[in-house]
Amino acid sequence: MSARVLDGTAVANQIRGELLPQVAAFAARAGRPPGLGIVLVGDDPASEIYVRSKLKSAGEAGLRADLERLPATASLDQLLTAVDRLNRSDAHDGILVQSPLPAALGEDAERRVFDAVDPRKDVDGFHPINVGRLVQNRPALVACTPSGVIELLERSGIAIAGARAVVIGRSDIVGKPMSLLLLHRHATVTICHSRTRDLPSVASEADILVSAIGRPGFVTTAFVKPGATVVDVGIMSITDRETVARMFPPGSKRWDTYQKRGALTVGDVHPEIAEVAGALSPVPGGVGPLTIVMLLKNTLAAAESRARAV
Amino acid sequence: MSARVLDGTAVANQIRGELLPQVAAFAARAGRPPGLGIVLVGDDPASEIYVRSKLKSAGEAGLRADLERLPATASLDQLLTAVDRLNRSDAHDGILVQSPLPAALGEDAERRVFDAVDPRKDVDGFHPINVGRLVQNRPALVACTPSGVIELLERSGIAIAGARAVVIGRSDIVGKPMSLLLLHRHATVTICHSRTRDLPSVASEADILVSAIGRPGFVTTAFVKPGATVVDVGIMSITDRETVARMFPPGSKRWDTYQKRGALTVGDVHPEIAEVAGALSPVPGGVGPLTIVMLLKNTLAAAESRARAV
Repeated sequence: MSARVLDGTAVANQIRGELLPQVAAFAARAGRPPGLGIVLVGDDPASEIYVRSKLKSAGEAGLRADLERLPATASLDQLLTAVDRLNRSDAHDGILVQSPLPAALGEDAERRVFDAVDPRKDVDGFHPINVGRLVQNRPALVACTPSGVIELLERSGIAIAGARAVVIGRSDIVGKPMSLLLLHRHATVTICHSRTRDLPSVASEADILVSAIGRPGFVTTAFVKPGATVVDVGIMSITDRETVARMFPPGSKRWDTYQKRGALTVGDVHPEIAEVAGALSPVPGGVGPLTIVMLLKNTLAAAESRARAV
Repeated sequence: MSARVLDGTAVANQIRGELLPQVAAFAARAGRPPGLGIVLVGDDPASEIYVRSKLKSAGEAGLRADLERLPATASLDQLLTAVDRLNRSDAHDGILVQSPLPAALGEDAERRVFDAVDPRKDVDGFHPINVGRLVQNRPALVACTPSGVIELLERSGIAIAGARAVVIGRSDIVGKPMSLLLLHRHATVTICHSRTRDLPSVASEADILVSAIGRPGFVTTAFVKPGATVVDVGIMSITDRETVARMFPPGSKRWDTYQKRGALTVGDVHPEIAEVAGALSPVPGGVGPLTIVMLLKNTLAAAESRARAV
């Protein structure tokens, strides 16, 4: 094991520590704390966990955080009405509609709901106007996971300017904003995906390799240039014995955890890359804690920006 | 000379031929032609030429095209008033404010003016909401030059899916939208810029190399993998004898043109790459004619989309 571990939890705590006095100062000025409204439709167990965790973190940071629940049977109109109420609420600076929405709402439901969020309250950074402002390198609310990765790299002393960065995955939520954030910090950025030919060879050009595709242990040593920084953004719970065994040899600590629980939280990155990489943001413990703290940071930024606009 | 020449003029004429009946059909349905409003501030000679050319092409394609001129001394408010008038005009589907604006208007004048254009009429594709929709791979008005490059590649039978594409230049107008358009067509895209280390080596990974930096003859054979497709988006008029001689040997046709006129229109790409590249979109004659025809195409699309929305 040679790679330095980039400690997402430590960086998240550092940012949290910086936010506390800023949140308090806002509350003193405004006579109210920054407010986050979360809309949760249905009862997907993973979403429940994420939402609890966001509410708890927001509360601990001194934010007001409200959960609006809608039944799995809710109509798109009901959901849009809930969003509209939060758009018009003076107490709420940030709005988050937990994804995924129930499939019954239709294929374009998420897009329609994200578009309906007031861009000034769009703390997920999913509204096209925030995405466009990100492309133009202007102040914007930016998706939490990629901006968390930037914080992690910068606060861990990883040089981005001049580096070759390779992003695996071209999603709207991670891959594309991640590429833009790296580009604006003067990395030479390559964005890869399912149609990329000879992916290991392309990936191994990277000084900074970010993987966000959601395939357990997909990124092996063949993808990694010796000494490179590897950030694992994939996160999933796996139950398949063979997949676990491929990543963690029987007898290892993680294998034992799997034996006990019957499931294991893993990322895109195979643990073997620790022998090759110079630095590694692992799963769990890497980017996850940063995503939540960036949500709080975005909510504070939205609150301050709304207060300035009044 | 081995590279196949990608003939931008021929492709532009092909698209123009397709537009004519579509414009006529729109006019018959709507009782008016699609309308383009161009705002020109001041009297920059290059801008004069571009605007004339746009007006002429629009007229030939059956569009209504109006030029609103403002003096170089116009205030930002006067300019924004002109834009607002076009925003509210029923006869105008597309609005183009010719860049660059006079420096006296201030550094952020262009940004403020482009933001003021109704996104539905934003035929330059500069409004953040159109840029965001482009990122999200949704219907949008997209910047004319990069979408012209896509037309040129696709209609010339250059395979984009699975190709490695390298874009040199990260401007909002060409480099970034170009990268996104190539990405959505399943290229593996690398975006390079002034801070890229060992640019020739990175560029020579490309199956499709697009240069948009505005440095005469900068892209030499060292940048080009044998057989690659090279698209020259840089365009400038040079007068410096040594720069011309570096690109065109005394005695050549282009050198003679320079001798006669004292200036020469050149691109980023050194002509020597024709010996290495498989296909080449040269300057002049490559992308330039496509940029204008994409403006007409965008104006028709904006007209059709506005008519549907009524």
